[in-house]
Amino acid sequence: MILEVADIRIQPGQQADFEAAIQHGIASVISQARGFISAQVQHGIESPERYLLQIQWATLEDHTVHFRGSPLFPAWRAIVGPFFAEPPKVEHFGAI
Amino acid sequence: MILEVADIRIQPGQQADFEAAIQHGIASVISQARGFISAQVQHGIESPERYLLQIQWATLEDHTVHFRGSPLFPAWRAIVGPFFAEPPKVEHFGAI
Repeated sequence: MILEVADIRIQPGQQADFEAAIQHGIASVISQARGFISAQVQHGIESPERYLLQIQWATLEDHTVHFRGSPLFPAWRAIVGPFFAEPPKVEHFGAI
Repeated sequence: MILEVADIRIQPGQQADFEAAIQHGIASVISQARGFISAQVQHGIESPERYLLQIQWATLEDHTVHFRGSPLFPAWRAIVGPFFAEPPKVEHFGAI
């Protein structure tokens, strides 16, 4: 199992709409992906335009190859992309 | 409950020693703090000198006031600080 961490900055004042959109996107798109295990969204206290999206995937390739190469990826970006102030910073992590 | 996320960069080649040190520091120091709930450490796949330390605290002040103002803080930094390549980037998050 690996952890995807997406560090997201949204445009100011869009928090309520973005939170509804990302929850909709997880429920309707991300959770349908091969290898999806679970997802959590956290909202920044010091940086109110910052969110961390953390997704557990069965394998790295389930995210980087299968999800990003599937029709789910543009469907997901259509839902959340309009809120982004800049491209999210995405990396992957493993437990120690 | 709030989540502390510390984005850590260590000096190259120190992974094994750092992983032992941070696990020791969590078990012997952090876990003794008021309001500590749980902690997880993740290791970067694309950035092998990067670690994410995520700590659940009962309240923000349990970390920012009580922990940082207690003798536990210098004890913790003495264990993990020597591995840091730069000061960790620490922010706090709440669930949406």
